[in-house]
Amino acid sequence: MRHLISPLDFTVEETYEVLDFAERIAANPKAYAHAADGRQLATLFYEPSTRTRLSFESAMLSLGGQTIGFAGADQSSVSKGETIADTVRVVSCYADIIVMRHPKEGAPLCASMYSKIPVINAGDGGHNHPTQTLIDLMTIRQRLGRLDNLTIGFCGDLKFGRTVHSLVKSLVRHTGNKFYFISPEELRIPDYLVDETLEPTHTPYEEVSSLEDSLPKLDVLYMTRVQKERFFNEEDYIRLKDTYILNREKLQLAKEDMPVLHPLPRVDEIAYDVDDDSRAAYFQQVQNGKYMRMALILSLLGIEDPQTGEKILELGES
Amino acid sequence: MRHLISPLDFTVEETYEVLDFAERIAANPKAYAHAADGRQLATLFYEPSTRTRLSFESAMLSLGGQTIGFAGADQSSVSKGETIADTVRVVSCYADIIVMRHPKEGAPLCASMYSKIPVINAGDGGHNHPTQTLIDLMTIRQRLGRLDNLTIGFCGDLKFGRTVHSLVKSLVRHTGNKFYFISPEELRIPDYLVDETLEPTHTPYEEVSSLEDSLPKLDVLYMTRVQKERFFNEEDYIRLKDTYILNREKLQLAKEDMPVLHPLPRVDEIAYDVDDDSRAAYFQQVQNGKYMRMALILSLLGIEDPQTGEKILELGES
Amino acid sequence: MRHLISPLDFTVEETYEVLDFAERIAANPKAYAHAADGRQLATLFYEPSTRTRLSFESAMLSLGGQTIGFAGADQSSVSKGETIADTVRVVSCYADIIVMRHPKEGAPLCASMYSKIPVINAGDGGHNHPTQTLIDLMTIRQRLGRLDNLTIGFCGDLKFGRTVHSLVKSLVRHTGNKFYFISPEELRIPDYLVDETLEPTHTPYEEVSSLEDSLPKLDVLYMTRVQKERFFNEEDYIRLKDTYILNREKLQLAKEDMPVLHPLPRVDEIAYDVDDDSRAAYFQQVQNGKYMRMALILSLLGIEDPQTGEKILELGES
Repeated sequence: MRHLISPLDFTVEETYEVLDFAERIAANPKAYAHAADGRQLATLFYEPSTRTRLSFESAMLSLGGQTIGFAGADQSSVSKGETIADTVRVVSCYADIIVMRHPKEGAPLCASMYSKIPVINAGDGGHNHPTQTLIDLMTIRQRLGRLDNLTIGFCGDLKFGRTVHSLVKSLVRHTGNKFYFISPEELRIPDYLVDETLEPTHTPYEEVSSLEDSLPKLDVLYMTRVQKERFFNEEDYIRLKDTYILNREKLQLAKEDMPVLHPLPRVDEIAYDVDDDSRAAYFQQVQNGKYMRMALILSLLGIEDPQTGEKILELGES
Repeated sequence: MRHLISPLDFTVEETYEVLDFAERIAANPKAYAHAADGRQLATLFYEPSTRTRLSFESAMLSLGGQTIGFAGADQSSVSKGETIADTVRVVSCYADIIVMRHPKEGAPLCASMYSKIPVINAGDGGHNHPTQTLIDLMTIRQRLGRLDNLTIGFCGDLKFGRTVHSLVKSLVRHTGNKFYFISPEELRIPDYLVDETLEPTHTPYEEVSSLEDSLPKLDVLYMTRVQKERFFNEEDYIRLKDTYILNREKLQLAKEDMPVLHPLPRVDEIAYDVDDDSRAAYFQQVQNGKYMRMALILSLLGIEDPQTGEKILELGES
Repeated sequence: MRHLISPLDFTVEETYEVLDFAERIAANPKAYAHAADGRQLATLFYEPSTRTRLSFESAMLSLGGQTIGFAGADQSSVSKGETIADTVRVVSCYADIIVMRHPKEGAPLCASMYSKIPVINAGDGGHNHPTQTLIDLMTIRQRLGRLDNLTIGFCGDLKFGRTVHSLVKSLVRHTGNKFYFISPEELRIPDYLVDETLEPTHTPYEEVSSLEDSLPKLDVLYMTRVQKERFFNEEDYIRLKDTYILNREKLQLAKEDMPVLHPLPRVDEIAYDVDDDSRAAYFQQVQNGKYMRMALILSLLGIEDPQTGEKILELGES
């Protein structure tokens, strides 16, 4: 049995296998309408997340499976003081696979240590969000045909944005990638990402402050939200906020085929006039999200692809 | 593609088509057990409503379809500042049809402008509640065999009761109908209903204050709840509240076949001793609610009636 | 039609029939994968309970059925002042069977009086929790082969623990059972249990304060949680709390085959080092919970066992 807790739980080769599988599903979703018949997915959401929860539930239902779960800690036994360990052992008696979102970092890892069924991390605090990373990779590859030799710009809140950290950790495993980290001083990438990921892999990167200066150089732009409450003072916020908003005017500085990614929800960091530009890739990410989650559920349940007859992951010891 | 935002979105002819379809479903629900196999309904409830949500979910499940969604704004991404437009575009990637309840008037209309899939309005503030109106029409027709040449009494809170306004707007499209509006002074029908609906259609109506005086004249009685907090002062409330309660004694003044409708939930405006009277039609409305919603889901999804092989609505430009 | 409100609603003979049915399901759950196709279970949870709700939902889905419902009073129409009677009459129009949890004692009984479909009590205040009792009986019989001639110890909060009261009421119907009630003075079993259940049946029992002294004599140990807020003063709590915690060391005093039951969730009344002991039966209870609920749903719906072709309960007048 295997779990998906960190995006690095999959080798590069396995990652490509899963991406290919998700593409096969996207090309012919109806071929998978009964692939998970009789199976149950438990969605244990200790904090609300409409998008991620509905995406997983829709994915499972589209595979012929069923879902049970809760959508916030107030609906769970948390208030009765039960440990995560006990909760997952109980849920293991009901369902076949667990998806967990939790405000505390490490909770899904802890859960996976006690669970009798596969656990997928759907976000733990500021830590990991591996399914989002796989969706990001799928979308980049669809747009540009590759995951290597790319110049990728990350813009906005790079300090707290977990989707940025997860994607960087994954992209350094592909050769020839280069990063621009575009943010205000206060929201630069954390030291550990430099020390543990960028330096050891000798990945070229630059930390810059201007979105407009960086745009012409980028193959991919990954936007994130800049939250007002992250700033130390109001003046800095007012001075900086417009700098990190992408609109149609700024987008003219970018390459013709530079996809704009965003994990959503957005507030105002991407103007609505960008939505109709062919470079806007964020709703494509949402659609990919469903197919990727269908692929992950089947892979971790050890169900073979009904179109190819093959299992995607080696589920022995790993 | 079409949406159902206002009860007037359907022509009179289409309304009859939908009513007939709902009757065919009511007569043989099992014939529809797989009509929506593989389809998903998203219930986006920005305010709670057990009855309406469960009715739609039960309807979709009884068609062989599946449901995803949330049951209150606290479970959604609302708190993260996402717009309705973005939410429906995201949900369009997961589901096949959306049902939305929202405290703000116009929110479902706004949603329908951005959605890639049909949107059904399940109530927006004090505005529209079109599925309730169709249920009311279905129930009246079942009881009396027609929707025209009726004398209909509306009793209670006629100022804020959206189900009353919606039903009035729909009934004036049928010839020969006459209305009694029975309410305290403070809760009379709003001016816009007179100016925009009753006057232009030359529909006869009277605004009266006594339920007992009106009862003998009515073919249909539509009760609504009088909420204490609507009154300007306690004295008026105490003086008036009993006047607008229907009980078995008052019911003796009514015609033998006068159906009593109520959109539920009731508090005490219909005494429990009325429930066993054959004229009580409010639980029949509930049962009709499921069949009507089955009919609407299939109609808006463009799925043909498996019994007749025909599609109900023209889904081209409308 | 029948309901399950109290564990005594089933005769001893019927209880054995239901236990046997649950065992047949446990032995071959896939044989029941379509037993409830096309049926709907409504979970009306007026207070949250992850374990019980998910168990029922998983059970129904594993039978091929579907579920609708709410997971807390805030999601329901309670706030609009609707009575239980009206709510169940409404839900009777949508679903085929109701599971209700309610903070007020007697609410499920009241519901059953108005419902047109079977009602299962999933816990009402400090009153009954009949499905838990049936699960407890199933687990004891699996471990020891019988429900009579047993010495059963109940430990912890025996005053407020409804699962204890329910199980005692059920076990006195089997001959030769004896009870040890192990608790602090403040949390002894209530007088009514003595007066109405133990005395009339001449059941031998002892009220004691030491878990360690009692352990060697027990065939079964039923643990419950001791909540700090139940104590009259902090000193008593500190003095007593460790006394009623079961750990691996104390367990050495017990018989080799003495099952340890607990209704869960636990906080710290059973140390984690007990979990790996073969006597720990609480996760087996959880697993049994799913099979028992599958058995109860089918029995109350009047669906025959697809393996034997027989109905479990007589559903005429009872």
